[in-house]
Amino acid sequence: MSYSFKNDYSEGAHPSILEAMTLENGIQRDGYGEDAVCNRAAEKIKKFLDNPESEVFFLSGGTQTNLTVISAFLRPHEAAIAAETGHVLVHETGAIEATGHKVVAIPSGDGKITAEQIHKVVLQHEDEHMVKPKLVYISNPTEIGTVYTREEILALKTQCALDQLLLYVDGARLGSALAALEGNLTLADLSELTDAFYIGGTKNGAWIGEALVINRESLQEDFRYHMKQKGALLAKGRLIGIQFDVLFTDGLYVEVAKHANRLAQKMRKALAEEGYEFLTDSPTNQIFPILPVPLIQTLSKDFGFFKWAETAPGFAAIRLVTSWATPESAVDAFIEAVKKNRQ
Amino acid sequence: MSYSFKNDYSEGAHPSILEAMTLENGIQRDGYGEDAVCNRAAEKIKKFLDNPESEVFFLSGGTQTNLTVISAFLRPHEAAIAAETGHVLVHETGAIEATGHKVVAIPSGDGKITAEQIHKVVLQHEDEHMVKPKLVYISNPTEIGTVYTREEILALKTQCALDQLLLYVDGARLGSALAALEGNLTLADLSELTDAFYIGGTKNGAWIGEALVINRESLQEDFRYHMKQKGALLAKGRLIGIQFDVLFTDGLYVEVAKHANRLAQKMRKALAEEGYEFLTDSPTNQIFPILPVPLIQTLSKDFGFFKWAETAPGFAAIRLVTSWATPESAVDAFIEAVKKNRQ
Amino acid sequence: MSYSFKNDYSEGAHPSILEAMTLENGIQRDGYGEDAVCNRAAEKIKKFLDNPESEVFFLSGGTQTNLTVISAFLRPHEAAIAAETGHVLVHETGAIEATGHKVVAIPSGDGKITAEQIHKVVLQHEDEHMVKPKLVYISNPTEIGTVYTREEILALKTQCALDQLLLYVDGARLGSALAALEGNLTLADLSELTDAFYIGGTKNGAWIGEALVINRESLQEDFRYHMKQKGALLAKGRLIGIQFDVLFTDGLYVEVAKHANRLAQKMRKALAEEGYEFLTDSPTNQIFPILPVPLIQTLSKDFGFFKWAETAPGFAAIRLVTSWATPESAVDAFIEAVKKNRQ
Amino acid sequence: MSYSFKNDYSEGAHPSILEAMTLENGIQRDGYGEDAVCNRAAEKIKKFLDNPESEVFFLSGGTQTNLTVISAFLRPHEAAIAAETGHVLVHETGAIEATGHKVVAIPSGDGKITAEQIHKVVLQHEDEHMVKPKLVYISNPTEIGTVYTREEILALKTQCALDQLLLYVDGARLGSALAALEGNLTLADLSELTDAFYIGGTKNGAWIGEALVINRESLQEDFRYHMKQKGALLAKGRLIGIQFDVLFTDGLYVEVAKHANRLAQKMRKALAEEGYEFLTDSPTNQIFPILPVPLIQTLSKDFGFFKWAETAPGFAAIRLVTSWATPESAVDAFIEAVKKNRQ
Repeated sequence: MSYSFKNDYSEGAHPSILEAMTLENGIQRDGYGEDAVCNRAAEKIKKFLDNPESEVFFLSGGTQTNLTVISAFLRPHEAAIAAETGHVLVHETGAIEATGHKVVAIPSGDGKITAEQIHKVVLQHEDEHMVKPKLVYISNPTEIGTVYTREEILALKTQCALDQLLLYVDGARLGSALAALEGNLTLADLSELTDAFYIGGTKNGAWIGEALVINRESLQEDFRYHMKQKGALLAKGRLIGIQFDVLFTDGLYVEVAKHANRLAQKMRKALAEEGYEFLTDSPTNQIFPILPVPLIQTLSKDFGFFKWAETAPGFAAIRLVTSWATPESAVDAFIEAVKKNRQ
Repeated sequence: MSYSFKNDYSEGAHPSILEAMTLENGIQRDGYGEDAVCNRAAEKIKKFLDNPESEVFFLSGGTQTNLTVISAFLRPHEAAIAAETGHVLVHETGAIEATGHKVVAIPSGDGKITAEQIHKVVLQHEDEHMVKPKLVYISNPTEIGTVYTREEILALKTQCALDQLLLYVDGARLGSALAALEGNLTLADLSELTDAFYIGGTKNGAWIGEALVINRESLQEDFRYHMKQKGALLAKGRLIGIQFDVLFTDGLYVEVAKHANRLAQKMRKALAEEGYEFLTDSPTNQIFPILPVPLIQTLSKDFGFFKWAETAPGFAAIRLVTSWATPESAVDAFIEAVKKNRQ
Repeated sequence: MSYSFKNDYSEGAHPSILEAMTLENGIQRDGYGEDAVCNRAAEKIKKFLDNPESEVFFLSGGTQTNLTVISAFLRPHEAAIAAETGHVLVHETGAIEATGHKVVAIPSGDGKITAEQIHKVVLQHEDEHMVKPKLVYISNPTEIGTVYTREEILALKTQCALDQLLLYVDGARLGSALAALEGNLTLADLSELTDAFYIGGTKNGAWIGEALVINRESLQEDFRYHMKQKGALLAKGRLIGIQFDVLFTDGLYVEVAKHANRLAQKMRKALAEEGYEFLTDSPTNQIFPILPVPLIQTLSKDFGFFKWAETAPGFAAIRLVTSWATPESAVDAFIEAVKKNRQ
Repeated sequence: MSYSFKNDYSEGAHPSILEAMTLENGIQRDGYGEDAVCNRAAEKIKKFLDNPESEVFFLSGGTQTNLTVISAFLRPHEAAIAAETGHVLVHETGAIEATGHKVVAIPSGDGKITAEQIHKVVLQHEDEHMVKPKLVYISNPTEIGTVYTREEILALKTQCALDQLLLYVDGARLGSALAALEGNLTLADLSELTDAFYIGGTKNGAWIGEALVINRESLQEDFRYHMKQKGALLAKGRLIGIQFDVLFTDGLYVEVAKHANRLAQKMRKALAEEGYEFLTDSPTNQIFPILPVPLIQTLSKDFGFFKWAETAPGFAAIRLVTSWATPESAVDAFIEAVKKNRQ
């Protein structure tokens, strides 16, 4: 048995997606995402949004979506605010700055930020010698597996309204958060509480693609111009439409996420029972157990995963990620291996 | 019979590609294009290049490739040069300028530019009050279906060397040019004569993807950083690798283009025999016949195509594009319809 | 006798300015242009504007003003329109593109553009695959000495309103235009008919500095942020305030321009009487006579000027520029030299 | 008695500068800094540099210099590193980001950074998903008055060489550092140990202007293009040349700084003798005493200064800045007032 828990984009797409691609393949469609399939997929998503003002746009990947959104929404002197662990701050090779905008960092242990922290940043930026904070970027789940509840997002939204800030949610793994929160947070909530958010496809069963939802008309204006300028308007745009059409049929989007979550949590429970602790409190498909280094070495012979951080002499946190495609047997084998190598 | 000749991205992907995607689907691969399939596809392409210095990078689309290349190659004060009909000048919503660079236009009737024109632009930009031309952008075939021969590209290359300019070829429809030139121009020629060029997939049988070839080590340095920053590094990068692996197996890449060219040229011959003229002299899969307006109206009932330009009172040029998927029957039906409505 | 007619920034500042700088030198003032002198200068200018909505901002130079204005006014996908001879298109080293924006060129023989040409550009940019024209840039006088009358600017303004475009006037030599038009065009007219324009100081008697006038509140919002970001907010901002305070006292601004115009026109008249023609019809302080090459060579021994363009075999246009500081004796000497070398 | 210690740009320029401007005023000079006076000033500066490779460029202000340098030196994916209090990070309205580059922050209590901290940042940026650190930005003195000695800069330079980083010094108040370090650090040292640095004029007796020194030929190439593009090439460039010509005659540059330092240190000594502490250990013309709030209120009736930070209940740090123009009597009056209001 050998399996990689390195990430949730190791495999291809959910089989239903491949099927739909095959069925669609010979049909002629209009280009650049203005076709019937993209429209149908958008309509299916909009049924969950319950917000007549919301519009859906399909883009290829997370970094592309983040940079297109932020550069479209801000004027040159305006800045985004993000947790210091935020994807836009650390792992996008300065993509936001390359469009001209500073990202102001907020210290965060668990990957999340609070209304108080946001307001403090606003107060610190008091005049034209500093950038003007204009957009709050959060990820849900965060980059380290924690989640924001509906109440937490409401608190951020309230603060954003007071400080005249936009709220934008990076949902690269949004399915996992929705599944973990078990109804506490819905797409309709996000449509109500945010200015924009995206529903990640790449890490939730698609080959490629994110569905960006913009909830204010003024921000939707000319958005396709921004997409085109940033290289985000695919000629065969329906490639993404087909995938979201499938993912939003019969609840597949959340079903896929539930599968991934369940398997990650199964490992989490088993590891906890073995007495191991975790770097963060993650109910999602990414967990970060802290293990003795010799155990990590043993496990790495049969399983793929990233070493995340050294935590104490002789101990390190690793990252285990499950996906729509992870077989239960791989998870069981991993748990077995942990138990066998009990230390 | 109803068929659209609007473009070469109306259908999905060549069936062999879908097959390969299905076979690959369950296999776990490394992310961000650093997997075995992308490597294999790159190696297959490199066999045609015959240039040990050339490297291959996979990106999603043409605009994305152009903006990533140009912004990576130029310093802030440097500019690109392109024909006034060049895709980067007209149809990319200022994507190049959005990365900070001016594109200097060269007047062109047939979509092509000459060494003399390039040198003239260089002479006109004489000091630090003007941008410094640094890169020549051409498309082959051009946006209006004309092609550069090996000799013409050699002439541009020679001028570029004299003027210390880089030469970059946009090959969105490169297969069509290679097929049309019947061996006069090869991938190895392009690898020898250009600093970079890309082999278009999207418009030649792929779902998505372009294979960028950079022929100088100094220009390859850190190129993946630029890809990531511009949102061009796909998590499931192998999606593009799989497609080029198939397209570069058993000559499929050129075979697909030959099919499209043959059908377009069949229409061209028939239209010429009917006495119609053409806006440009295109041996590729795009042709631009000039037809009487009533005929255009009649044809548009059964066939899709773009009206390109009014040419004289009562006449207009239309654009007819064929693809890997165009059935011969559609072409025959079109020809039949033209003949039936002889005017 | 030896004098340079190369440009209108060869000498320092009008003596009254140096006097005021000396008087002001020891007084402590607030930084960054928020001082009493800047305020006073702005108020003096505003008296001429007759527009309660207009605000004045002081910047260092023309390129800096143009790039700050255009990047502040446009969203990323929006473009400026300018005559092909426009300063922003040719002689600012891609400064506008460096802020992310394309400048669309309009062909122009006399440096001016028309409402029809503007509307044509708008019609050509029909969808999100192209930039969206948003701002019309004109220079008055143009780079080649021609001027727009009030009626011509009104026509542009009317078209801009119809096409939802902003109208911005580069007034690097605005004094010269106002003086040449003898009351046909006033600062109040510009305040009424444009969204923004700048009153050039550097080329009209100041050491450094341009007074930007923005005539719409929505465009003034946060403008100092943009100035700071582009490096245009001087610590000792009052340096520019002092100069405009002097220039807008007792009509000095126009008086200085009248002096320069009168001397340039004196040369023009004399050259015309000698039978020479001109490249453009310039009533300003820049004239472009077409002279025989041997005469140019002879004159260049005693006078400085730029060769502008070859016009016919044996003939070339030269550029003669006068300034606030040009002595009448230099002009007389030049005329004398032309006459003496009659050909 | 009423005097403002708010900053060192409250007054105009050193009288010798005004004299030189008056003498130069009527002389015709070439534009854009290519005149005899700029050349002479550059030569005078170069005598102190003792480095045949160094070249001098004159720009208008600090933010402008920083953004022009950093955007000229870096490729799009490269980033600068700075102390979290660095001017480029906090007080330039995102000017560096507006040119496309991230600035990575290093925590710092005293405004300075160490070789170890730099190396740690380099190690953290391990692949193409993150920016590539390329340039270290320091200010000397720092924004809070501390200084780097020659030995400290040598340590940074050594680390930069190991990590292939450029070292750039913002010398907005460089005169004050040089004067405070009493020969420990010279312009020749900076020319040897840095890739570029600038000699601040605006805050050391000039009306406007900074003298940028670039110490490597490869970085000087086309630098005037970058200046022009960023709006930093003044038409009457000699305005800055004249000022540096004066400042580098008979040691005026350091003399001016010594005067300012001496007066600031006189206040510092007196305040220390009164038992007050300081936020930072500053030997320069900026000091940050921590005073009881009632005393601050009393002093603010007669003296201008900025409240910098609250330090403890009832106490705050204020910033006192002296300049070339500060009269000793103002300093004595301030000391007197402190003593009179002893608490």
